[in-house]
Amino acid sequence: MQVRVWWTYRQVEAWELRGWTVAVVDCLRATTTIAAALAAGCTAVVPVEDEGVARRWAVERGAVLAGERSCVPPSGFDLGNSPIAFTPAVVSGREVVLWTTNGSRALARVSAAGAEVLAFSLINAAATAAHLARERCRRLAIVCAGTEGEFALEDAFAAGALIHRLGTPEGNGLSTDEWATAALLMYRGGREDPRAVLDATAAAAKLRRRGLGMDVVFAAREDVLDVVPLWQAGALRVPARRT
Amino acid sequence: MQVRVWWTYRQVEAWELRGWTVAVVDCLRATTTIAAALAAGCTAVVPVEDEGVARRWAVERGAVLAGERSCVPPSGFDLGNSPIAFTPAVVSGREVVLWTTNGSRALARVSAAGAEVLAFSLINAAATAAHLARERCRRLAIVCAGTEGEFALEDAFAAGALIHRLGTPEGNGLSTDEWATAALLMYRGGREDPRAVLDATAAAAKLRRRGLGMDVVFAAREDVLDVVPLWQAGALRVPARRT
Repeated sequence: MQVRVWWTYRQVEAWELRGWTVAVVDCLRATTTIAAALAAGCTAVVPVEDEGVARRWAVERGAVLAGERSCVPPSGFDLGNSPIAFTPAVVSGREVVLWTTNGSRALARVSAAGAEVLAFSLINAAATAAHLARERCRRLAIVCAGTEGEFALEDAFAAGALIHRLGTPEGNGLSTDEWATAALLMYRGGREDPRAVLDATAAAAKLRRRGLGMDVVFAAREDVLDVVPLWQAGALRVPARRT
Repeated sequence: MQVRVWWTYRQVEAWELRGWTVAVVDCLRATTTIAAALAAGCTAVVPVEDEGVARRWAVERGAVLAGERSCVPPSGFDLGNSPIAFTPAVVSGREVVLWTTNGSRALARVSAAGAEVLAFSLINAAATAAHLARERCRRLAIVCAGTEGEFALEDAFAAGALIHRLGTPEGNGLSTDEWATAALLMYRGGREDPRAVLDATAAAAKLRRRGLGMDVVFAAREDVLDVVPLWQAGALRVPARRT
C-alpha cells in the first residue's frame, strides 16, 4: 500500500486525491466525535462549514445540532463538539449536523475528491486499518485537519497510529512518503503514552482551559470503537458491513 | 530551556527570533558539510545565497569555492557540497565560500536575527547540546532548512536529536512547543537506526541517484565531531573555547 500524509487539509489540492482512499483525522476533536456519535447509534453525521447552514439544515432535517465556536456550543445548539456528550440517549436513530472549525472544513474539502473518504482518529484506528485491509486499499491519502492551516501534533500522531496498524515500511510492502514516515516515527516515539502526547498539544491546553480536559482523555484511548465513518451522500455513515 | 522548532526557514519571521539562540539544521547536507569543513581546519565558512556572489567572493578572498546545483558542483567550483570532500588537505587554514540551495538561504535569513546563531546536524548534536549548556541558553529556536519551503524529515529528525540531548520535557525544565515535541518524538521513534531514517528521505534518494549515497552514510553518524559552528562577522567559525 502507498501512504501519503498532509499536515493540513489546506496543503492538499483536490486533483492530488483522485483515485486515492482519503482518511481525514481531526483527533481533537471532530473525527473523534464523529466516531463516537456513530458508535452511539446516530444514523449520519453531516459536517457543515457554515454556522447558518448548520442551523437551517438541523431544523429542516430534524437533526441534532452540534458544533463549537472556540471549543463551546454556540447559543441554541443541542451539543458542543465533546465526544463524551454524544450518548445513545441523545443521538440514537437521529442525524447530527456538525459545525466545527477545522474538521468540517477538512472533510468538506476532500469529500468530493477521493475514491473513498473516511474519518478516523486514535479511538477507531484499528477498525480503520481493518477496513482498509478488507477493501484491499492500495493508495491511502491521510489528510490531517491541523490547526488553522498549521501542523498539529495530535493529528500527525493519530496518522502514525493508523499507519502503524497497516504494517511496516520495512516489512510488507507499505510505501510511505516522507510525511507518512515522520508520522509513523512520531507514533513509535510516543506510543507508550498517547495521553502524554495529546496532553502536550496546544489543542489540549485550549480544551483544558475551557474545562474540557476529559475530551482529551477520551480521545487518547486507542482502538476502543469498532466503527469506520464513511462518506456517503453528503454525510458520514456506518454502512452495513459486507460479509 | 524553552525550545521552538520551525519545519522550514520560510515560516520564520525575523522578529520571532529576537533574543533567541538560533540553531540552523540542513542535515543533507549544508550544516553537516559546514561542521566537517571546520573540523578539517578551515578557518571560516561563508554561506552565500547567490552563485555569482559566491564566485566573486572566492576570488577576492582566495577562498575555496564550494557549492552545488542539483547536488553537484557547478563548473569552476573547487568542491561540491559533499562533506566527505572537505579534507584538511583541501581546506585547512583556508576560508570556504559555500553556495547551496536551502542551507545557505536558511543561514542568511536567520543570521541577522538571533542573539546567537549556530549550525548543527546529527554529526555534532552532542557538541551543540554541550555548548548550549555551557552558555546557559534559555531560549533555543531551531530552524530547519527544509526542502524548497517544505518539511524535510532529516532536518526534523536532527532537531529531535539535539532536543533529546538537552534533556527531557518531563524531566528537567525543558519546555517544548508542539513542533519541538513532534521532532523529539520522531527522534525517539527512529533513534535506533538514524541511517534508516535518513535513507527514507527524498533528499537521500536524490543523492543516491547522483552517486552520492556516501554523503547520507556520513551525515547519519551521530556525535562524531566536536565542533560548533557559530555565526560571527558574516561567517561560521569555531571560536577558541572559553575555559
